[in-house]
Amino acid sequence: MPKTGALSQLMQALRCLPGVGPKSAQRMTFHLLQRDRQGARNLAESLLAALEKVGHCALCRTLTEGELCNICTNPDRDKTQLCIVETPAEVYAISQATGFKGLFFVLNGRLSPLDGIGPNELRLDLLEQRLESGDIKEIILATNTTVEGEATAHYIGEMAKQNGVRTTRIAYGVPFGGELEYVDGATLAHAFNGRKEF
Amino acid sequence: MPKTGALSQLMQALRCLPGVGPKSAQRMTFHLLQRDRQGARNLAESLLAALEKVGHCALCRTLTEGELCNICTNPDRDKTQLCIVETPAEVYAISQATGFKGLFFVLNGRLSPLDGIGPNELRLDLLEQRLESGDIKEIILATNTTVEGEATAHYIGEMAKQNGVRTTRIAYGVPFGGELEYVDGATLAHAFNGRKEF
Ligand SMILES: [Zn+2]
Ligand SMILES: [Zn+2]
Repeated sequence: MPKTGALSQLMQALRCLPGVGPKSAQRMTFHLLQRDRQGARNLAESLLAALEKVGHCALCRTLTEGELCNICTNPDRDKTQLCIVETPAEVYAISQATGFKGLFFVLNGRLSPLDGIGPNELRLDLLEQRLESGDIKEIILATNTTVEGEATAHYIGEMAKQNGVRTTRIAYGVPFGGELEYVDGATLAHAFNGRKEF
Repeated sequence: MPKTGALSQLMQALRCLPGVGPKSAQRMTFHLLQRDRQGARNLAESLLAALEKVGHCALCRTLTEGELCNICTNPDRDKTQLCIVETPAEVYAISQATGFKGLFFVLNGRLSPLDGIGPNELRLDLLEQRLESGDIKEIILATNTTVEGEATAHYIGEMAKQNGVRTTRIAYGVPFGGELEYVDGATLAHAFNGRKEF
């Protein structure tokens, strides 16, 4: 079977998707070219459109089209609560699972000095500005319960303390070492609503 | 959460992939835009290239770039044996699992009168030409063991008989109602090598 050419390149390219191994990639390739060429074209165009249009919200750093996301610009959100998460996926997960009506700040990572990820990479300067503005009354630390997530929560907790802002940490209802994105909604809601002073 | 826009459109577009539900599509979207933009661009370009370049082999109807596939043009293949399969994926599966060195003919479907799929849709005219050419000494029927796959095998078996060509059917080592594409290689090799007169 050919290892080069458009068919093999597509099989290889599909493997950039999380959870897609060689067997799935082959099945997807045949499915697209054999039965769903319109879907394949739509997928290609959607990828290019997203790459061109989607960037980070200037305020909260989640993925969004345009300058600001639709959470930051929503006048009905409670601007006194700021929930800190590691990824945009967790904004979705927490929004869908809990009744949280405040704002988010997305780190797009976690402190990891060995990987060269420090406060600058997480844009904690933007977070500092918001803490200094005095609008925020509570920081909810919803970083993952991994070692690095805990260290990140601790660091931000200190920042908040220095600005006199109350800080809570979501309850340890989630298994230690777990990625929040993969936790079921009920557990997540429980952990979120049971958050404690940090 | 937004239901429109480039992010949601990408999540929706990813669902054309077999086995990808809303949760996976969301995870893939964030992964691509957050961590692997180069992979996303490569995937989009590979999709467009495959859509433009990949069509059906003029001789055997499998998916290929150019006029003829690299099985049909391989001078080392045994041109007296022709294996009939429903999909290009099965060409891959049989090639990888068995030592088959003959040629293939891909139906790209199966007879299904209620869905308007008859001999013309399966390009059995092309198969008829090859039977009439006298080059083929054995037709190996490797259609799926579904009701429609069996009916298709029966129909082609009759065509072969009228042209005086020996016809075999792969052995029923595969579970009845099973799709060959999903059968493990060992079972497939066993069934293939144990094929019987039809
Ligand atoms: Zn925002
Ligand atoms: Zn061919």
